[in-house]
This record gives sequence, C-alpha cells and structure tokens, in this order.
Amino acid sequence: MTWTLYSGWRAGAAYRVRIGLKLKGCAYDYAALDLVAGDQRQAAYRAVNPQGLVPALDLGDGTILAQSLAILEWLEETVPEPPLLPRTPLERAMVRRIAGIIACDIHPANNTRIGAKLRKLGVPDDVIATDWIQGWIRDGFDALEPLIARYAGRFAFGDQPTIADCCLIPQVYSAHRFGLDVTPYPAIVGVAERANQHPAFIAAHPNQQPDAVPA
Amino acid sequence: MTWTLYSGWRAGAAYRVRIGLKLKGCAYDYAALDLVAGDQRQAAYRAVNPQGLVPALDLGDGTILAQSLAILEWLEETVPEPPLLPRTPLERAMVRRIAGIIACDIHPANNTRIGAKLRKLGVPDDVIATDWIQGWIRDGFDALEPLIARYAGRFAFGDQPTIADCCLIPQVYSAHRFGLDVTPYPAIVGVAERANQHPAFIAAHPNQQPDAVPA
Repeated sequence: MTWTLYSGWRAGAAYRVRIGLKLKGCAYDYAALDLVAGDQRQAAYRAVNPQGLVPALDLGDGTILAQSLAILEWLEETVPEPPLLPRTPLERAMVRRIAGIIACDIHPANNTRIGAKLRKLGVPDDVIATDWIQGWIRDGFDALEPLIARYAGRFAFGDQPTIADCCLIPQVYSAHRFGLDVTPYPAIVGVAERANQHPAFIAAHPNQQPDAVPA
Repeated sequence: MTWTLYSGWRAGAAYRVRIGLKLKGCAYDYAALDLVAGDQRQAAYRAVNPQGLVPALDLGDGTILAQSLAILEWLEETVPEPPLLPRTPLERAMVRRIAGIIACDIHPANNTRIGAKLRKLGVPDDVIATDWIQGWIRDGFDALEPLIARYAGRFAFGDQPTIADCCLIPQVYSAHRFGLDVTPYPAIVGVAERANQHPAFIAAHPNQQPDAVPA
C-alpha cells in the first residue's frame, strides 16, 4: 500500500517526519497543502486530520497517523532499521528530551496559527518576528546547546541520526528563516551542517519539496 | 536510590509525570518550586534543569531526566508494569497522538512564560484568559473529543490508564481552572471524571501536593 504524507514545504513538524521517512528508506506520495492560504483548515483536509494541522500520514488502508512525534515513534517500532533511538532507556530519554524541548517548548509557540492570533491581538509584525519568534528559539537553543555539546558526535546524540535530529534540523532551518543569530550555538550549528550533507536530510529539506516556492 | 521530582502543584507537565509515577507505584521525594515567584529561573534550579522548566526527575545517582513525555516513555521502558501504552504500534501511535495534541499543541501555548510575555506585549489579562488560553484549549479539545469518543473505554484509550490520560487529566484540570465551558466535550469530561476516582490520579492531583495553596 502507498503511504501519503500531508505536508507543507516549510512546516517544521512535517519536515521532521520527512526526515524520519527518508532515514528509514520509506517511499511515500507527497500531498502538498498551502498553509499560508489555509488549505489545512478546509473540509477536505479536516476529513483527513480534524485538527487541521500537518503532518498526517495516510497508510493507504484507511489508517491516518498524526502528530509528528507519534508518527516517528510508530515508524521506529514498525521499521526498526536503521534505529532512530539509541539502545538504553537513559540514552533514549535524552534523545526524547532533546526532541521534547523542540517539539513541546520551542516550535509550538512559533507556528502559523499562533502568529496569526498575535497579529489579531494587535502585536506588530516586527515584534512577532524578533521578540516572540526569535526569543522562543533563543530560549530553547540556550537550553539545547549544552546538551548537544555534551552528547553530540556527528549527530545530535552520538554518531547516528536519531529522532533528536529529526526535530533539531527543522528548528535550525526555522531559526535561519526568522533571522536568528546562531553564532552563540556552535554545537547546534555543527550538527546541522553535518546533517545537511546526509542524503536523507537533503531529500527532506524544504527546498527539495514539490511545493517549494523559490526565494 | 531515592528519586526526587521537581514540581509545582498546578504545573501541568509535572502533574503528568506525577500521574505516571503513581500509576507505576514508584515512590519519590517531592521538591516544590514556586513557579509564580520564579524559583524555576533561579540558579539553584538551573543547576538541575538548565531549561528552567518543571518537571525534572532526579534519579539520585547524578542522573536528571527532563521533559514530561521523555520521562513517561523512560518510565514505561524501565518499570513495565502496569503498562501505560497499549500493545500494538498502531494503538500506541493513537495514544501518543492524543498525548501530542495536548503536550505539543494545547499546553505549550498556555504556560506561565507565554502568559508573562503576552502581558509584557500589552495584551490585557482578560484577553489572555479568554481569547488566548480558553481559545487554545477549545481548539485542542475540538480535535480531541471525537478521538476520545471513538477510542475511550473507562480511560482515554480503552479501559486502562495510558500516557494519554497522564496528559489529558491535567489539561482538563487546567480547562476548569481557566473557566472553559467543557459541556461540548462529554467524552473528555467522562474520562476525567472516572480517572479522578482512581487512587493514582487522586494522589497526583494538584490539591494533594505539599505546596498546594488552598482556594
């Protein structure tokens, strides 16, 4: 059966799942949603994922998966090779901690619907871009940098890509997109530079998606 | 070795981990932080968790765990009984999807640091309480209600408590705290009412914590 990933080229949570799928060597069809135009809130997509958020992964048999971390954990359980989690529970807890800092503390404050609500409340665009978006990424990276510096090898945890990298690399992409100065985060930047030379990360990159809009 | 949980009585993510620990029958010391006074940002706690957020679980041997979902997954791997995840990967993906909707999409928009930032940006308190906090819970509960209605038995997924309940019950507590009308969510409310009669959920409830402030 053919899998279909509902995605938007720059949507951070969908980018995470693309990396996981590419690392596992799983083929999928790509269903693009225009998140700026609001495709994700239309009835057609609500029938796939009532939450109106990407990603969703349609397994082709009527089963829909949603929530990026849940999809990545499911992928790890059903397609074990190559592993995206280390072997010991403590190591796995550290990888999931890194993923959690990004997926629960940095990214949610900065997604499209939060920005739209802030604008509705009268917060100026430049304040949203700097004080809000850059601020939350900076807060999170301040916490991540010492963890990555301590645990990274070639990747965020050791020398193999893990779920931590599936979350970290899209967040670094977002940091660049929103103009954050990342020089205070050499460990994070180093991991991102190495990851971005890996074929799976290259294939999952926003610019490589069919719905990418040229700069 | 004695475990120590760093917590605040009403902090949603710490409440999740308390439920997990109680369900697993794990004893722990309780280290209270006054999150309103800002204990979590002081150097003493930053030495435990540089991110300055609760919960953190100190295993007593120099190991610190952080991020509620990472702690719950670690607990599930190291203390397997009673299980907090169902058996098949697809069922586990659904439990983690419910947990993700709460931990990645509802709760992060509403925590203390976001409220403080909104106030700094000039958003009035009543708008924060209604338009912002109630609004994000409502959005999330709109997505959760059909999932819970479909998959719940006595608990959010089937008849045994899972990580989904560890996340859902604190979020329902928060909904009540912030005055959300929960009558549109009978499936969610039903699960919460049953869970709140379970000894582990009673023991983990904010009002039962040593740092609880009487109403």
